[in-house]
Amino acid sequence: MPNILAMDVGGTHFRVALFDDSGKIISVYRGETLRSGGREWMLGELRQRAEALRRESSEPVMACGVSFGGPVDFKRQRVTSVHTPGWENFPLSEWIEAQLVLPCRVDNDANAGALGEFRFGAGRGTESLIYITHSTGIGSGIICNGRLHRGRDSMAGEIGHLPLKESDSRCTCGLMTGCTEALASGRALDHMARDLAEHHPDQAARLLELCGGDPGKATARELIEAARQGDAAAAALFASAIRSLALALIMAIRLIDPDKIIFGGGVAQLGDFLIDSLQNALKEWWSDQFPNTTEIALAELGDKSPLYGAAALALQITG
Amino acid sequence: MPNILAMDVGGTHFRVALFDDSGKIISVYRGETLRSGGREWMLGELRQRAEALRRESSEPVMACGVSFGGPVDFKRQRVTSVHTPGWENFPLSEWIEAQLVLPCRVDNDANAGALGEFRFGAGRGTESLIYITHSTGIGSGIICNGRLHRGRDSMAGEIGHLPLKESDSRCTCGLMTGCTEALASGRALDHMARDLAEHHPDQAARLLELCGGDPGKATARELIEAARQGDAAAAALFASAIRSLALALIMAIRLIDPDKIIFGGGVAQLGDFLIDSLQNALKEWWSDQFPNTTEIALAELGDKSPLYGAAALALQITG
Repeated sequence: MPNILAMDVGGTHFRVALFDDSGKIISVYRGETLRSGGREWMLGELRQRAEALRRESSEPVMACGVSFGGPVDFKRQRVTSVHTPGWENFPLSEWIEAQLVLPCRVDNDANAGALGEFRFGAGRGTESLIYITHSTGIGSGIICNGRLHRGRDSMAGEIGHLPLKESDSRCTCGLMTGCTEALASGRALDHMARDLAEHHPDQAARLLELCGGDPGKATARELIEAARQGDAAAAALFASAIRSLALALIMAIRLIDPDKIIFGGGVAQLGDFLIDSLQNALKEWWSDQFPNTTEIALAELGDKSPLYGAAALALQITG
Repeated sequence: MPNILAMDVGGTHFRVALFDDSGKIISVYRGETLRSGGREWMLGELRQRAEALRRESSEPVMACGVSFGGPVDFKRQRVTSVHTPGWENFPLSEWIEAQLVLPCRVDNDANAGALGEFRFGAGRGTESLIYITHSTGIGSGIICNGRLHRGRDSMAGEIGHLPLKESDSRCTCGLMTGCTEALASGRALDHMARDLAEHHPDQAARLLELCGGDPGKATARELIEAARQGDAAAAALFASAIRSLALALIMAIRLIDPDKIIFGGGVAQLGDFLIDSLQNALKEWWSDQFPNTTEIALAELGDKSPLYGAAALALQITG
């Protein structure tokens, strides 16, 4: 009964874990990412924590799976991040294989999250699902016919960059489009919250209260809480973001018609209010011809979906 | 070396064919669909033509595959057409199995077209593709990881009903949305052509010439030909339809990132001008982050993609 290693490498924190071959966590280390340390610091941490867990393992460790919080070329097993200095075109699998002398497979966090929920979470028993990571940005991983569908350029699942509207401002993708991410991500909600608190304090009483009177501290979290409590201005902003997100889901449902859409990531962890609001917004596009029975659910593995997915990647190697 | 039967049942014509087990057509019958004859007439034709081909076959016939030009519940193997009287909830596979004493599998024409091009046409060698049937309406079939992805309710691939815009008029799907089909289908192009010819004859000289001076005879075909020849008003209308279609493709590319998108159906048979115009329109959504290498191509099997797909369905039965 061999064990396996799983790593979840993110911009704010990272995890290295030892799993048994049934997908149960035996031991897990969680650390904060030292941004100033760059790639070398992170690689050092990963190696050190992996070696410590391996020494701890009562069974031989046979493989390693990695979830990386940025774009990954799966076929070439390279990080292709153009945003994070040092990681660009880095052969992460190859490096881990050389350091740990273990076969390794790496994928991006959205795909890993999809795989984690599919094998061990809310997606068990489905044939197809979309796992959406709703955090600072918005990404997704897609399972079809029981397998990850990565696409021609490892670019499938870019639900955050569906051009839902024309726009006067530039999206992070470089286009003058109102992409899902520009309209409904954690970053977009943060901006809405701060704008409301700073420029419309007369409409932001509840929001300001929730952030201790400091408009600079208003974030998505406080905006959603103010909306949940019925504050009109916050509710209207939240509703417009939710409508955009629902429209993106409708595009995905019309094209892919998955069994389930599963929400993970930081915004999703604010809970059922997000799902309930989305379900309600989706009704705008219901018709007799499109009854839309796709289930919308929260991730069962919380913020560990990508870590479990990394374990699933390793288990694909050990067979 | 057993042979198989394939049927392509459409609203304007139908085909019944004998294939060998390598997917080559041995013999094919093509007939016009007698709309007034309804379901019973069509079933009678299918049985009669199938029996004739079977008598002709030098090898035993082992299975039958069917492409049906309307919605099909694949899991239940029933036609679910709500538009064509008589076909609603009809167990077409079961009927054929009883009549011909052959195992049978039925799917809708968009899925069959995708399967046909994947196994025998422009999609050979790909892992994923979207086959778009661009005709009176717009539908699609999706291959992921080398297999048809049909979705939870056999409703995947509804690229014709992506709500691309708000709208003051009702789409055929029942919603007040500017769906792809309402903006860019053969039906939409027919309306544009007739409207231009009837209400703006001063701008429609070339178009009117192409339809012999009778504005009532202006269709998509003449509109596209006038646009191809550089007629300004026709070109502007065609360009707006193409932009909508390109936007729908971008949604599909962002989500699915297929190796290829393959165009079949009546409008596609107007040729390379459609593909060239689409390629050009797609550039609006190119960026460094999204280089979009998905290939856009015409179906290689012409109007026989669904028939070949029906053969592929039968070959899945015989293994």
